[in-house]
Amino acid sequence: MSEELPTSATASPRVDVAALGEHLLGRWADVRRTARELAADERVWKREGQSMDQHRERVLDQLGFLVEQKAVHRAFPRHLGGEDQHGGNIAGFEELVVADPSLQIKAGVQWGLFGAAVLHLGTQQHHDAWLPDIMSLKTPGAFAMTEIGHGSDVASIATTASYDPQTEEFVIHTPFRAAWKDYLGNAGVHGIAAVVFAQLMTGGVNHGVHAFYVPIRDEKGFLPGVGGEDDGLKGGLNGIDNGRLHFDHVRIPRSNLLNRYGDVAADGTYSSPIESPGRRFFTMLGTLVQGRVSLDGAATAASKVALQIAVTYANERRQFNASSDTTEEVLLDYQRHQRRLIPRIAKTYAMSFAHEELLEKFDEVFSGESNDDARQDLETLAAALKPLSTWNALDILQECREACGGAGFITKNRFTSLRADLDVYVTFEGDNNVLLQLVAKRLLADYADEFRKLDAGALTRYVVRRAEGVALNQSGLRQLAQTWTDAGSEKRSANFLKDPQTQRNLLVERVRTMVADVAGELRGAARLPQDQAAAVFNAHQDEVIAAARAHAELLQWEAFNRQVEALDDPGTRSVLAWLRDVFGLTLIEENLGWYLMNGLLSGQRARTLGPYINRLLDRLREHAQDLVNAFGYTKDHLRAEIATGIEAERQQEAMEYYRLLRASAHAPIDEKVLRARMKAAAGASR
Amino acid sequence: MSEELPTSATASPRVDVAALGEHLLGRWADVRRTARELAADERVWKREGQSMDQHRERVLDQLGFLVEQKAVHRAFPRHLGGEDQHGGNIAGFEELVVADPSLQIKAGVQWGLFGAAVLHLGTQQHHDAWLPDIMSLKTPGAFAMTEIGHGSDVASIATTASYDPQTEEFVIHTPFRAAWKDYLGNAGVHGIAAVVFAQLMTGGVNHGVHAFYVPIRDEKGFLPGVGGEDDGLKGGLNGIDNGRLHFDHVRIPRSNLLNRYGDVAADGTYSSPIESPGRRFFTMLGTLVQGRVSLDGAATAASKVALQIAVTYANERRQFNASSDTTEEVLLDYQRHQRRLIPRIAKTYAMSFAHEELLEKFDEVFSGESNDDARQDLETLAAALKPLSTWNALDILQECREACGGAGFITKNRFTSLRADLDVYVTFEGDNNVLLQLVAKRLLADYADEFRKLDAGALTRYVVRRAEGVALNQSGLRQLAQTWTDAGSEKRSANFLKDPQTQRNLLVERVRTMVADVAGELRGAARLPQDQAAAVFNAHQDEVIAAARAHAELLQWEAFNRQVEALDDPGTRSVLAWLRDVFGLTLIEENLGWYLMNGLLSGQRARTLGPYINRLLDRLREHAQDLVNAFGYTKDHLRAEIATGIEAERQQEAMEYYRLLRASAHAPIDEKVLRARMKAAAGASR
Repeated sequence: MSEELPTSATASPRVDVAALGEHLLGRWADVRRTARELAADERVWKREGQSMDQHRERVLDQLGFLVEQKAVHRAFPRHLGGEDQHGGNIAGFEELVVADPSLQIKAGVQWGLFGAAVLHLGTQQHHDAWLPDIMSLKTPGAFAMTEIGHGSDVASIATTASYDPQTEEFVIHTPFRAAWKDYLGNAGVHGIAAVVFAQLMTGGVNHGVHAFYVPIRDEKGFLPGVGGEDDGLKGGLNGIDNGRLHFDHVRIPRSNLLNRYGDVAADGTYSSPIESPGRRFFTMLGTLVQGRVSLDGAATAASKVALQIAVTYANERRQFNASSDTTEEVLLDYQRHQRRLIPRIAKTYAMSFAHEELLEKFDEVFSGESNDDARQDLETLAAALKPLSTWNALDILQECREACGGAGFITKNRFTSLRADLDVYVTFEGDNNVLLQLVAKRLLADYADEFRKLDAGALTRYVVRRAEGVALNQSGLRQLAQTWTDAGSEKRSANFLKDPQTQRNLLVERVRTMVADVAGELRGAARLPQDQAAAVFNAHQDEVIAAARAHAELLQWEAFNRQVEALDDPGTRSVLAWLRDVFGLTLIEENLGWYLMNGLLSGQRARTLGPYINRLLDRLREHAQDLVNAFGYTKDHLRAEIATGIEAERQQEAMEYYRLLRASAHAPIDEKVLRARMKAAAGASR
Repeated sequence: MSEELPTSATASPRVDVAALGEHLLGRWADVRRTARELAADERVWKREGQSMDQHRERVLDQLGFLVEQKAVHRAFPRHLGGEDQHGGNIAGFEELVVADPSLQIKAGVQWGLFGAAVLHLGTQQHHDAWLPDIMSLKTPGAFAMTEIGHGSDVASIATTASYDPQTEEFVIHTPFRAAWKDYLGNAGVHGIAAVVFAQLMTGGVNHGVHAFYVPIRDEKGFLPGVGGEDDGLKGGLNGIDNGRLHFDHVRIPRSNLLNRYGDVAADGTYSSPIESPGRRFFTMLGTLVQGRVSLDGAATAASKVALQIAVTYANERRQFNASSDTTEEVLLDYQRHQRRLIPRIAKTYAMSFAHEELLEKFDEVFSGESNDDARQDLETLAAALKPLSTWNALDILQECREACGGAGFITKNRFTSLRADLDVYVTFEGDNNVLLQLVAKRLLADYADEFRKLDAGALTRYVVRRAEGVALNQSGLRQLAQTWTDAGSEKRSANFLKDPQTQRNLLVERVRTMVADVAGELRGAARLPQDQAAAVFNAHQDEVIAAARAHAELLQWEAFNRQVEALDDPGTRSVLAWLRDVFGLTLIEENLGWYLMNGLLSGQRARTLGPYINRLLDRLREHAQDLVNAFGYTKDHLRAEIATGIEAERQQEAMEYYRLLRASAHAPIDEKVLRARMKAAAGASR
């Protein structure tokens, strides 16, 4: 917490900003502090207005600086100079987004994708041969998975790796234009090697997608058989040299197959520790879940920066004088401004708490402390949270930019630059809509499993258990159902809404009902011919995605609720509980049509919702500055002129000028006032 | 219509693309065609990746080119070489956005703000003295209204213009830092004069905001007493040199007051043709409504370009093969993709039709064919439509960018660049939230007027009349109310929903109820002390803005409906009627909670809404390409690689490769298939 930042006026209850800040830093607080210190160093900041080429070179240099600072090796093996630390590695990595998202993502390409693929898909020989130079950045590399023709559908990529037993080599080949690798960081200019994903062919059999280590450039340029194109300017992240690669029968040694999950013997015999080709494929891709985990965290960090800037400004900026002739209102006193910013603070807390839990799960799985189920849960959780947080970040950055008006549009105030850079987060490392479909499929599969057990309460228990690890009992649910049909007085309704149990039940019931409804619609489709089954599924695709989204929102709410309950300070807990209520109730408000249509809320209760949220916002208004200050970013992270107190100084100067003018003999009289006086005088003289 | 663009497969009914395109071009079709021809000229295109300085110089040069092409003088007086053509001028101007939004807005600053202020606020002497050089660009100028401290609240600007009768001069002065003029196009580098808005002081009286013509630079830089700062990089529109200006007792001749609505005699006596200072202020500002009108049109044009690109790609791009083993689905066949793009096509048609009517009203008012009421109606209409279309444009550009995945993020595919440039449209020329509040205040004032007449049906008639110019009779409304409470069968409900009269009634009723509810809440507030009255209003600010938004949406729907009814071709009319239904019904779906809560829809009817919209989208799917092709932009306007057919070629090549491979003897067998066969064989041999 920077001492220089403004703090809210004292009130009761009061947020303990320092303690809340510590709580937000979570389990890897020390790593985050170190990373934030690094991110506060001018040498890693984005320099706005650089050309694409300058920006790319600067970011490459910064990557070298990160190596010097030992900021990027935490996830690598101890014997190679790393720390075998997985959760902490991501925690530190995602904080870099506040310095420059290009820096974060280019580091992610180098060490989180390219290096991690060698680490997780390769074996000892590969680690020893390549990781040292990857870690030191001597070998900048690309992660060549996506093709022009196939992004989200990785299983269908078309690059081939055909084994030639004569020479004991794989032949990497691009059969047509759509199979060119595309959007690869480090491919445009800097990469000298790549991990290339291709269909492994040996003995006439296609064993599916595997990863290969392929040198692509030397000091003179592309190696023979390798070609490519620069992707050129992008909507953001222009410090990264994204590009395309293609291969014309490029030969690599057999040992360049990253063979942890599938190997080819000298004679061409294929073997794998995982028999099912499907499971093998998902296991290989699963090792790359950290990309999604870290985007979830980076999107949250950027949202915090934006809100810290916008709320600071909203507490200083004045405009229009409705309630007084001489003093204009502070923006955050306007209800509309509260509606724009405070629910987004609540969302950001939900994102932050949910992310911390995701990170813990990630660490558990990658430290080898857990089983296959935990790995699958981790993947589903990441696929659920990443879409929400990355979409929310764009929404938050944009609303903050608009809430600061013209000043928000000027680059030096950060919003537009961060938004441009984060734009692609919603479609890379898994397109958000595709990820939510994966989540939905998991929900439907689990539902089918539960359904088979013919237990009426099964799904409810399942949803609740997944969300909070504790089952609601049946009678509790029945009672809840009864409460919903109760058309109580407005007073009772407000009590009803602020009960966290009600919020949870409403959010749980929404997921349960949506999944059950869709499952009912899809029942029987599996027995239809493929095209008809696909048509049935497609006719419910929108609902399926909505159900997954509702599930992810429930997960966020549960994380928020758990963290509120874990707070020691009563004042902080009270304020955070209101903020959790804002989060839960605005989710219900956003889906009010659904709740009413499905009879889970009466019209009378629903009508109390908006006014109750407005009252909560009014109550939280005085804590808004504390809530964003607890995010803990300093001026060197915010780097926005409008968050430096400059606006308050200007307002002060203007108010002082008018005060002196009014006190002087020279104050001009307003024509309106003069006319009113003349009119009055004319009336009196008549 | 470019012949090269793909067209939908023939179907029944069929859209007559050429005729629909002509209809969309509207009353000023010829001007639009000329402007589009100009916008297709490479010389006016945005060159991506230029530095800010290069871009600024290029756009200044392009402004000179526009002068040569006689593209920007239509609104100026005939005797000075203009055409006295107001609607046509805007129609041509807004089309320039597809070349480069910086070009559009810098032209808008020069001729639509700076020049228009001299034209509309000045008198003959000013026109003769300054307009020729403004028109020819010999005098690039700034429109110095906004200050750092005051954007939306123009009446509170603090720059002073004090009359000195000794020298017959005005003294322009900036009293403090917050009063610096800011965000002014042409102020950063190119402007040599400015129209400066300041509080006119003479004889100890402040007569309020007036406009003054002030030279600011010569070839050596700022003139004595004038200073400024460059705003530097912005989130977009970097071809415009926005900057700040301040004045230290700068003296200008008395005749530099633009004196159409207020004058000062040599002895310092103030006079005005408009007695009320308030009305005078709004009259002066009202002359500048064309900025809002043209942003409404430009946002619509950019949305058309984005959708034409994204739909073309969605009809070529394939991903995942759910319904067949060999052919992947075209993106637009996915329900989710239809949900993402088709309602936005519907919104764009609504924006386009509503804009055309706004333009006609604008032309009528500015050609002097109408009275004060019409002028006020025009201002309210512009304040209602501009927020919707500019927000929609950002939403449409973003959804199109995401719908094209990584390709959408690459600058050469246009979305990110257009979005960055259009971002500020939502907060300049009137912040959207502030504009909607103005609309709401007008609605509330009109409601109060009607209410005073003590006529129960007054408001309903008022809303309907404003929206369509025809009053519903009372019995019709009663019957409608009865239908709403009717819980009919699902089949009857679908018929109910597709009846345009139902859609209109639901949209009208929403505005009516919201305005009446808010008015009820605010009743009595006027009699409270100022601060308490302000608090009551503030506690309903969010509802007030929501009511204005609902009103604006109704206006769009009415325009859409009128234009559908005006279509001659039955096929086109059928398809457009479905599209209107999608527009109306998605508006109702977005506010479903409100409709249910207020008892205007039953839960049963509400449940039919989503599925019915999905069926409509499915029906419109095959017409999507025709609907965007009718926007009529050619490849030289779209300028997006992914809209050139390149994706279809790549898909074709890939499919052909696999077809040949399957037909050959060399096709590798899939491990999954092999395992299945081995399993079957093992079973058979047992």
